[in-house]
Amino acid sequence: MAATAASGTRTTRYGTMRENVLGLEAVLADGSVVRTGSRARKSSAGYDLTRLLLGSEGTLGIITELTLRIHGIPEHIAAARCVFEDLAGAVATVIEAVQLGIPLARCELLDPAALRAVNAHDGLSEPEAYTLFLEFHGGPAAVAEQVEGVREIAASHGGGEFGWTTTTDERNALWRARHNAYFAVTKARPGTRAQTTDVCVPVSALADAITATAEDARGLPFPAAMVGHVADGNFHWICPVDVSSEEELDALRAFVDRMVVRALAVGGTCTGEHGIGIGKREYLAEQTGAEAVAAMRAIKRALDPQGILNPGKVLPDPA
Amino acid sequence: MAATAASGTRTTRYGTMRENVLGLEAVLADGSVVRTGSRARKSSAGYDLTRLLLGSEGTLGIITELTLRIHGIPEHIAAARCVFEDLAGAVATVIEAVQLGIPLARCELLDPAALRAVNAHDGLSEPEAYTLFLEFHGGPAAVAEQVEGVREIAASHGGGEFGWTTTTDERNALWRARHNAYFAVTKARPGTRAQTTDVCVPVSALADAITATAEDARGLPFPAAMVGHVADGNFHWICPVDVSSEEELDALRAFVDRMVVRALAVGGTCTGEHGIGIGKREYLAEQTGAEAVAAMRAIKRALDPQGILNPGKVLPDPA
Repeated sequence: MAATAASGTRTTRYGTMRENVLGLEAVLADGSVVRTGSRARKSSAGYDLTRLLLGSEGTLGIITELTLRIHGIPEHIAAARCVFEDLAGAVATVIEAVQLGIPLARCELLDPAALRAVNAHDGLSEPEAYTLFLEFHGGPAAVAEQVEGVREIAASHGGGEFGWTTTTDERNALWRARHNAYFAVTKARPGTRAQTTDVCVPVSALADAITATAEDARGLPFPAAMVGHVADGNFHWICPVDVSSEEELDALRAFVDRMVVRALAVGGTCTGEHGIGIGKREYLAEQTGAEAVAAMRAIKRALDPQGILNPGKVLPDPA
Repeated sequence: MAATAASGTRTTRYGTMRENVLGLEAVLADGSVVRTGSRARKSSAGYDLTRLLLGSEGTLGIITELTLRIHGIPEHIAAARCVFEDLAGAVATVIEAVQLGIPLARCELLDPAALRAVNAHDGLSEPEAYTLFLEFHGGPAAVAEQVEGVREIAASHGGGEFGWTTTTDERNALWRARHNAYFAVTKARPGTRAQTTDVCVPVSALADAITATAEDARGLPFPAAMVGHVADGNFHWICPVDVSSEEELDALRAFVDRMVVRALAVGGTCTGEHGIGIGKREYLAEQTGAEAVAAMRAIKRALDPQGILNPGKVLPDPA
């Protein structure tokens, strides 16, 4: 169910990972080795093979080298955490901060189920409520101003105590629940395997999308939890599933299907970061239209006429 | 000589224009209409047709609609200007500011020839020396901290008076030379047409690349001037050429050729923003290698088998 090929869309203050790839080396299906991009920050020389190959999940070429932009370590880093009365307040806080131009270097959301799992796994007693984890970068005055700005916004949207710190140890402590969420949810059910999936929606539709999915998740035969990249409208569901149980696998598939249908209905995408793989091929045409899939298939045939590169992935079988 | 198709790589604090295109609608050669992207901030669903079409200069499809990310107007905007003793000091200032993580919302460089043209055109008396034009966005404390940081760095690299302001009228006055440079250079020679060209190099190689090009420009039969996007390593040369003179056109072609050869020698690109068009087709294979050009040609053939879309552009004729 979960796609295995990450496609470089994880976002930081520095843009998505994909935007930080200056160029790459790849082996194509005919054995030729292409080098794309340059050492320059930007280029408009020829077709953007870098982006085409990055999002292709190995179906157009095998990437053997990447040239990345690097960024200096920020002068100051502040980490913050804020517990909210409800999801709507957490999302509204992020939207308002972004609209005011406050730069959020990182912005993560955990749901009550994720915090419940972390408390059990790590012996913590964090409030089991929607919680924002934030990071700010810049000079000391800029960071203080950003923290104060978001603290005020959070307070006006039902945010509780707004803890923040700038030392490395305290930052790690403050973000501990976020760092451990995946493992905690996974280990909460021994013998299961974590199946993760993601969608991405316009930020204005995020609160409704998460609320609907959380209500839906209550009927699942396993305790699913949510981790969101709120500023992007992107959220992941972590599902510790007994993969020997057809019933659980069926429930997972139907749950993901409903999540995707809701995302597409509001103009979102069936996957923000994970990629299409096999599990989401059936949604590609629904999302992009048959014409775009036909263009993708033409590119695939042109670059890999015998279909030897990661066959069966990304593109649905021709009708 | 100048390529006419801008390809969306102009950079702001918010990334290049290209990075702010969420999706598009395009008509392909077979008449089909594709919609790419979604209303979500990011997606990893299928091949990145958005980026492929954006950089294709009309050779893969005709773009009929774009969906753009929008950004809030910053709380405060500060404009600054600083005149430098030499080019190396101006470039070193920008490199050090970027390395320290000081966010530069805009960062432009004019050369002495551009300021000479602006002085003559607008009756100003600006120092005819390498001059940086900067813009900072953020809260009031953040902007003040950023300005102070860059002011100190500039002073340590031979920067003179560091003028800055936050009101709209004064910002426009401070940036006036930058805003008028293109027109001033163009109008300095009545009866000529401005031919512009650009290359982009690693920022570490920028000062040498501009210095070599400026020395080269002294031998030209027309008064060329330079405008640079320093933080990107990207610079443009504006050449007011008498296009009825074969001698001037030959001199222009040879000047651009030497500029490109120097850019490629340091790992740069033959064009940062303007695109390949017709004038730079011959450099594409030299920059990206024959294998990458073959892959681009395969994509072109797959999507436009009869070659009806902007024929002859971007890809050099097959050998």
